[in-house]
Amino acid sequence: MPPESLREPRQHRARVTREAIMRAAAAEFDDRGYAAASLGAILDRTGVTKGAFYFHFSSKRDLALAIVREQAVRWRRLAEEPTTGQDPLTRLLELSDVALSLFLGSAEVRAALRLSYERSVVDAGLAVPVPVWEGIVGEQLRAAQQQGLLRAEVDPAPAARVVNDAMVGARTTTEGVSDSPGLVARVDEMWRLLLPALAVPAWLQRWRAGAWEDRARPTSG
Amino acid sequence: MPPESLREPRQHRARVTREAIMRAAAAEFDDRGYAAASLGAILDRTGVTKGAFYFHFSSKRDLALAIVREQAVRWRRLAEEPTTGQDPLTRLLELSDVALSLFLGSAEVRAALRLSYERSVVDAGLAVPVPVWEGIVGEQLRAAQQQGLLRAEVDPAPAARVVNDAMVGARTTTEGVSDSPGLVARVDEMWRLLLPALAVPAWLQRWRAGAWEDRARPTSG
Repeated sequence: MPPESLREPRQHRARVTREAIMRAAAAEFDDRGYAAASLGAILDRTGVTKGAFYFHFSSKRDLALAIVREQAVRWRRLAEEPTTGQDPLTRLLELSDVALSLFLGSAEVRAALRLSYERSVVDAGLAVPVPVWEGIVGEQLRAAQQQGLLRAEVDPAPAARVVNDAMVGARTTTEGVSDSPGLVARVDEMWRLLLPALAVPAWLQRWRAGAWEDRARPTSG
Repeated sequence: MPPESLREPRQHRARVTREAIMRAAAAEFDDRGYAAASLGAILDRTGVTKGAFYFHFSSKRDLALAIVREQAVRWRRLAEEPTTGQDPLTRLLELSDVALSLFLGSAEVRAALRLSYERSVVDAGLAVPVPVWEGIVGEQLRAAQQQGLLRAEVDPAPAARVVNDAMVGARTTTEGVSDSPGLVARVDEMWRLLLPALAVPAWLQRWRAGAWEDRARPTSG
């Protein structure tokens, strides 16, 4: 075993290589999807040798799972960050903005979303973890319910599915148009329509009095 | 030119061949998407010769456009069928059930939806027509607004986008699970959450008094 001083840089180099492969793979999966993505193209994007690649990953499948798992951990961590004292519904709107910013700015996030739902991934029998965003929305809605902020007839679990479906769908329907503001505007429209169905009048009044409409919107890059 | 009696069967045969190609292509596009679909596999599915194929279509691209266009015409016709006197919101719920039934029962409809939004179609520069479902929802909501059935703050165009996105998203998020009831249940959840945000209390009261929850749900096949 080499002395500490030699091991450290080697570990560092290995980490840098692994991250470069992950980034290149994310770009490839985001661009071409699981079925069409090729290991050769991923290696070309990084300049890494096959040997170095197989030190870190055993297959395209392995790489796809690593991306989805890494993003799932990242999102869980995000949702568990201490809040700055907002109520759960306001926190949910804030998380929605964060989710959009990450999505627009990160190929890893877009790749994980594409891999989570893409038909060719399902066909390949890849057991990707359940996407976490729906769970995060559900948690905030349940917390809102406990604090008396949800209308009596609202059930948090199906409401979280509707929010998730509308956001996943907005990604799909705006993909062809390729103008990122389309996605942000659609998610805004969704909240404007859904919040009166979700929240008690007192919360809505406070929300409308706030400057949500005038806030800085998520942007790409 | 052959006499009428000989021409007629030939035209009939040509129509049957064209329909067989369209059906096979729809199954292939529905299963594998635009990029992965192959003309060879489509010919294998029909048993049609290359010569017969090229009599009807010039390319995979041509075939994809024909499917999307044919479905767009079919949906427009559907939306313009005379109603049986319901109000526009009730009609919208009925059309939503019809849309789900068609989707679950027809590879052509599923193929058209997949082709309308799929990334590889966009990447191929295929100018598919704007999907019609969002437009149909918008029309019903505008008619509802004119009859005083929408809440004052609801704008039909963005509301139609939210409905469309949630339905497109439900298709995506239930695709992996592959149990069709999942899609039907999710669309039900969407309407239950959205209708109180869309409709005036008087309409909601009539709707809740009706037997919508107990209706026959769309099924596959």
